[in-house]
Amino acid sequence: MKRIELVALPGIPRVRAGDDLAALIARAARDAEVDLHDGALVVCQKVVSIAEGRSVALADVAPSASAREIAAAHGRDPRHIEVVLRESVRIVRRGHGVLICETRHGFICANAGVDLSNASAADTAVLLPEDPDASARALRAALLADRAGPLAVVISDSFGRPWREGQVDVALGCAGIAPIDDRAGALDLDGRALAVTAPATADQLAAAAGLLMRKDAGTPAIWIRGLALSGEGCVRDTLRDATLDLFR
Amino acid sequence: MKRIELVALPGIPRVRAGDDLAALIARAARDAEVDLHDGALVVCQKVVSIAEGRSVALADVAPSASAREIAAAHGRDPRHIEVVLRESVRIVRRGHGVLICETRHGFICANAGVDLSNASAADTAVLLPEDPDASARALRAALLADRAGPLAVVISDSFGRPWREGQVDVALGCAGIAPIDDRAGALDLDGRALAVTAPATADQLAAAAGLLMRKDAGTPAIWIRGLALSGEGCVRDTLRDATLDLFR
Repeated sequence: MKRIELVALPGIPRVRAGDDLAALIARAARDAEVDLHDGALVVCQKVVSIAEGRSVALADVAPSASAREIAAAHGRDPRHIEVVLRESVRIVRRGHGVLICETRHGFICANAGVDLSNASAADTAVLLPEDPDASARALRAALLADRAGPLAVVISDSFGRPWREGQVDVALGCAGIAPIDDRAGALDLDGRALAVTAPATADQLAAAAGLLMRKDAGTPAIWIRGLALSGEGCVRDTLRDATLDLFR
Repeated sequence: MKRIELVALPGIPRVRAGDDLAALIARAARDAEVDLHDGALVVCQKVVSIAEGRSVALADVAPSASAREIAAAHGRDPRHIEVVLRESVRIVRRGHGVLICETRHGFICANAGVDLSNASAADTAVLLPEDPDASARALRAALLADRAGPLAVVISDSFGRPWREGQVDVALGCAGIAPIDDRAGALDLDGRALAVTAPATADQLAAAAGLLMRKDAGTPAIWIRGLALSGEGCVRDTLRDATLDLFR
């Protein structure tokens, strides 16, 4: 019988800039007698960003004319909008109080992923990691140095979607796993080619972890065991090419 | 320590039109000694549709001129396209061999969710359920009649997304649970209002179940325990109003 178990690692302290996140996670796992071996670790983007120092004090931000104009139109803090614009290569849509941006990484999401809540201090904006796949690789390498065994790491964030209300968690970066399980050529139970050939495993892991990662719960790292881990890859390589995208 | 466990119910036989799906699931759970009590059951749309008789023999489909034109342009089966058009109220985008449709329910997805693979017979198209929330309610009622206790049911399907390659499983219908956990007014660890206030629980459950629901695995029902179930609601009510949608 196939089973998967998700465990919210307890007792991870409030993360601050410069913290050794891998050490905090490894210690929390040891204290809880959770063996980080042969499974996937999903870590909330926010604590990764904070540990990496990807925070900006709003007091230090001078909003441009364009940021002031957008902020005024939508009733937002112009310093927040300024940081959002700096993190964006393009505004994809604007309306209903929402700013959908394409980030420098290629993510398309509200406010370029720049968040004011759960920040390490009041009046601080937390940006997405500079390179979330690299963050995942670094976290994985540090955890592997501590103990042997297969381990996948996924960095997750909560994104809204077109057409449906509510947010789901998606993968921003990953290491030690193929973000998409390419099943092209696989056959269904009737021996016909499968219609759905590319389940986005990293995003499914992120969404599953989201069930235990409510923002007010203080559980930024979820351990998932029971999966067959396979492949390698970057989330960045799975962002759809703009020339093939019908919604840009 | 918060934990969630997912179990793929083994031994569910190939589902056919008119089958009592609740009875098949209840028997599979009993045989596997899985107690369907105090948890969420995620069921693949395909088996729900097939049991409900939502299949169409392509041999009986006469493609319209419009279906033939689209099929020719994209190298598709005109009978499949005809069924897709009948299930659609609108084509949202067309290109790169993909037809993104708005279904009569309001879902926006490729081919209006009409699938040719994993069908109950060759040359059969399987449509989405007429009303997936009602399907979830009926399945839940039948399972509750069998045994007491809280139980949520989610009907899931694999959808592609804008901007990211790969498919994730989303909820088409649900019963016994609020599809979105509305946390408006909730505070984060700093006592600030949460930026993400509406995690889409039903979609997260669907995506988590998708990890054990690879289309060729023959496991159309996943049991998830360890969650605090709360609320009530329909997936249909969580589809974004067209007037507020920036991508239609």
